[in-house]
Amino acid sequence: MTMTDATTARLLVTCPDKPGIISAVSTFLFNHGANITDFDQHSSDALGGTFFLRLEFQTPDLDCSRDALRNNFASRVAEPYGMQWQISYASEKKRMAVLVSKHDHVLMDLLWRTSRGDMPAVIPLVISNHDDLREEVERFGIEYHHIPVTADNKAEAEAEALRLLEGRVDVIVLARYMQILSPEFVSHYPHRVINIHHSFLPAFVGANPYQQAHDKGVKLIGATSHYVTADLDQGPIIEQNVQRVSHRHSADELKALGQDVERQVMLRAVRWHLEDRVIVDGNKTVVFVK
Amino acid sequence: MTMTDATTARLLVTCPDKPGIISAVSTFLFNHGANITDFDQHSSDALGGTFFLRLEFQTPDLDCSRDALRNNFASRVAEPYGMQWQISYASEKKRMAVLVSKHDHVLMDLLWRTSRGDMPAVIPLVISNHDDLREEVERFGIEYHHIPVTADNKAEAEAEALRLLEGRVDVIVLARYMQILSPEFVSHYPHRVINIHHSFLPAFVGANPYQQAHDKGVKLIGATSHYVTADLDQGPIIEQNVQRVSHRHSADELKALGQDVERQVMLRAVRWHLEDRVIVDGNKTVVFVK
Amino acid sequence: MTMTDATTARLLVTCPDKPGIISAVSTFLFNHGANITDFDQHSSDALGGTFFLRLEFQTPDLDCSRDALRNNFASRVAEPYGMQWQISYASEKKRMAVLVSKHDHVLMDLLWRTSRGDMPAVIPLVISNHDDLREEVERFGIEYHHIPVTADNKAEAEAEALRLLEGRVDVIVLARYMQILSPEFVSHYPHRVINIHHSFLPAFVGANPYQQAHDKGVKLIGATSHYVTADLDQGPIIEQNVQRVSHRHSADELKALGQDVERQVMLRAVRWHLEDRVIVDGNKTVVFVK
Amino acid sequence: MTMTDATTARLLVTCPDKPGIISAVSTFLFNHGANITDFDQHSSDALGGTFFLRLEFQTPDLDCSRDALRNNFASRVAEPYGMQWQISYASEKKRMAVLVSKHDHVLMDLLWRTSRGDMPAVIPLVISNHDDLREEVERFGIEYHHIPVTADNKAEAEAEALRLLEGRVDVIVLARYMQILSPEFVSHYPHRVINIHHSFLPAFVGANPYQQAHDKGVKLIGATSHYVTADLDQGPIIEQNVQRVSHRHSADELKALGQDVERQVMLRAVRWHLEDRVIVDGNKTVVFVK
Repeated sequence: MTMTDATTARLLVTCPDKPGIISAVSTFLFNHGANITDFDQHSSDALGGTFFLRLEFQTPDLDCSRDALRNNFASRVAEPYGMQWQISYASEKKRMAVLVSKHDHVLMDLLWRTSRGDMPAVIPLVISNHDDLREEVERFGIEYHHIPVTADNKAEAEAEALRLLEGRVDVIVLARYMQILSPEFVSHYPHRVINIHHSFLPAFVGANPYQQAHDKGVKLIGATSHYVTADLDQGPIIEQNVQRVSHRHSADELKALGQDVERQVMLRAVRWHLEDRVIVDGNKTVVFVK
Repeated sequence: MTMTDATTARLLVTCPDKPGIISAVSTFLFNHGANITDFDQHSSDALGGTFFLRLEFQTPDLDCSRDALRNNFASRVAEPYGMQWQISYASEKKRMAVLVSKHDHVLMDLLWRTSRGDMPAVIPLVISNHDDLREEVERFGIEYHHIPVTADNKAEAEAEALRLLEGRVDVIVLARYMQILSPEFVSHYPHRVINIHHSFLPAFVGANPYQQAHDKGVKLIGATSHYVTADLDQGPIIEQNVQRVSHRHSADELKALGQDVERQVMLRAVRWHLEDRVIVDGNKTVVFVK
Repeated sequence: MTMTDATTARLLVTCPDKPGIISAVSTFLFNHGANITDFDQHSSDALGGTFFLRLEFQTPDLDCSRDALRNNFASRVAEPYGMQWQISYASEKKRMAVLVSKHDHVLMDLLWRTSRGDMPAVIPLVISNHDDLREEVERFGIEYHHIPVTADNKAEAEAEALRLLEGRVDVIVLARYMQILSPEFVSHYPHRVINIHHSFLPAFVGANPYQQAHDKGVKLIGATSHYVTADLDQGPIIEQNVQRVSHRHSADELKALGQDVERQVMLRAVRWHLEDRVIVDGNKTVVFVK
Repeated sequence: MTMTDATTARLLVTCPDKPGIISAVSTFLFNHGANITDFDQHSSDALGGTFFLRLEFQTPDLDCSRDALRNNFASRVAEPYGMQWQISYASEKKRMAVLVSKHDHVLMDLLWRTSRGDMPAVIPLVISNHDDLREEVERFGIEYHHIPVTADNKAEAEAEALRLLEGRVDVIVLARYMQILSPEFVSHYPHRVINIHHSFLPAFVGANPYQQAHDKGVKLIGATSHYVTADLDQGPIIEQNVQRVSHRHSADELKALGQDVERQVMLRAVRWHLEDRVIVDGNKTVVFVK
């Protein structure tokens, strides 16, 4: 952990825009001994829009406990302005579960980077509807739970997963998990389930997008990472990217190239979520990137 | 005109794949004194696929006239292998008509680059359903024809355009022409009408894609250039590109950024067509890029 | 001019970092009736670094004149914190001179976009050491001054240019101006002369970088836009970009492709300067991009 | 192994350009029952240049042994035209040694992809001047040789490495190997040692390029993969790429982002070498990419 991680806190705010918010927030923090070192704010309209804020502050000279800071911020600042907000600390890494089926390309990169300290998370468990990747996961000292899913047992399978996850994770990453989660499941983790869709949404919704891309002769293939909502493949987009391809690539080669884009897009989306850079705004996101 | 343009010819071939085609083509050219300086070939499958070829050859030592070369190639090589083919000469610039409505950003770049010799074409005329851009076009010494289009006169308007174009153009560029061409019109110029669609197809088909992109919160916007077929916005894709955007961009700003992508994509597609780099393969294209 | 342009003001601040700056700035603006709608701040270090800020605020409810706002900000906020700062208004477009030699590709795009309202500037004059581009420039209703430069008259030529520019411009763009400006000239417009270097700096400093790139067989060519300082081609970098190339491109073709990158890079750098998005920090820049 | 890999052979040719080469090559292959399915040829000049060719052919109907094909091609085609050439078979994967120090990010990706069949190579051994990565490598069932290198034993260390490599490898990848190989060592593997340089060459030659990039405030960082020659960091470039960065990134973060670019660039360069897509032309390369 670097000095910076040890002392850095982050505040996210969404609220109706009106004059005085920045003054209120920054004066509150100043009065409690916090030094703001990065401040990124955006209003969706000049008048009557929504106010979005992400800031980082340094905590060595805080004059109160973390609990007191939260309570005071809630009553003095958040409540008067009708804020949705959260304060988090870089030193408290988020707990991340990974759900996976058989494709390991995204999973392995997540495990590998997390184990190296290259991704600010801890992974308490991996859940899969297949047993294939157990050895790869357990080698990292991480629990692997095999929960088979069939047409008949889907509700029970989700219930079992929810029991395993309960109280143990802050975010769930679907690293090519080939089962559709029920709205009921998703409702337990609103805007905290991240999916990678193997296509440049809104194009090619549905199965086998690389074959669709090949049949259509597109010159770029893409991938999209988004939060999961009750509406399949339609949740708020966090990140997208593309890769140039040509007529020389077979559908299989598009798939292989696409997997590299999927991995890259997923890594960015997960990293931004872990660093509290993403605010959901209806069916869209505000992402405060570096 | 450079030495190269003065001496360079190009051969495009599509035919069922079988052994011996390259040998037949290259031996024919060698025997007639042509020197092949760029040869790009692709078969869609190892067995039983389609054979696509683009090659450039140098003509200073040709032992026969251009007509004789065509006739001999047709009988000795093209016919036995069932080829679709064309030979063209870099020194014979293609004649390009531009159809436009009121947006001038693509048109101006085409006029400007063509006038500088930066785009290998001559533009005999521009046709528009509005009179707004007349002065801009005529300043380049190019005919400007205003053909108003209404719900009632569409057939007559297209007939007038066809009369103006007849025998005078090799390719038609729709530089944001906001009228839908009838299948009848398009049938006169198969795979020779190039459109720019202001979206990353197949996403956001239809009107006002930038507003759609803004509403959806996409992180990349794109543009697609394609040949026009009877099926609107669905012809073979020639080129696509994207531009990264963020929540800070309004729908208007997405439109402005998108216009730069449109222009860039259109310029590449038109250039590749003019340099005989595009072969249509059903609803797809093979593009032999540099 | 949009509603937004009519009401938007911008504040840029650089100062030694310490707690309380954001509170002081935002409270000052709030107290004067300004509504902050975009706020982007960065500190170069968690402790003891430099504080950089760009913010936009809306002015309809300002309770004082622009002069009073400046004077009060200077005494109440800027002086206590040792700030370098500026307030500007989107409705007051910056005045931009263009210096050019014979290459017109960057110049034309600047003229064209400015005349369309696509670039927030006014261009009072263009100065060139050649007379070639006079007609193109004057057609836009812009003064064109031909000041020949020789080995002998360089000092006089610069003096004449300075007289023409004096009091009439806020920023000077070197749109492929092939003369080296003296440190004396540059000292009149510190961090207000923008150059485009036809290479990905720090590579290929000096003459004919495209031939150098071709000889070296690079796979990407680039361009760099930077502020001009006394140290040639070494001023603070504002923007860079690259374009993929291959062995099939001749040095001339690299040059043509490179000119498109140059134009794109220059347009972004100039736009960012015009929108007050660039703060110079020693030999580097902080660019608050959208 | 796919059907295609089982039947695909590749021919690479470099020779002085003259008419008739393609005819001679393709007719030879046709006469021996080979079907050409991909043919990519380039001449460096219209007249008097160098001829470069990569082609793929299918072997099921070859009428002679591989040895006979080589011998006949040598005498009938290669010798008359003064060709440098090679025939290889996709089913004969190249043997690749990896030299590494302590950074594992490139190594791990090579091991992982090779073990999955995603990179067409076999890795008989890894050599390192440190013992740190032994466990990671041996887990893949690959020999790990620790050969410490000091100022005093460099010649002996290289001799030991050469003994280990002799007859066992076709290509050597320096996956962030922090020792400079002697010209003597390199001379055993001409154009078969691939290095990744953590910078966009020719910029920032030398140590700690990410700190240099940070100090200079560049807006893009890059990486370069090249063949190693006696001239350090100056061998023929195979591939380069860049990543956009900003003032918000510390030198450490530039390094982390740069490592992703390094890995991506190295993977492409190695893949292209393994697929016989690279021909060295003096101090440059011709790369026949998909």
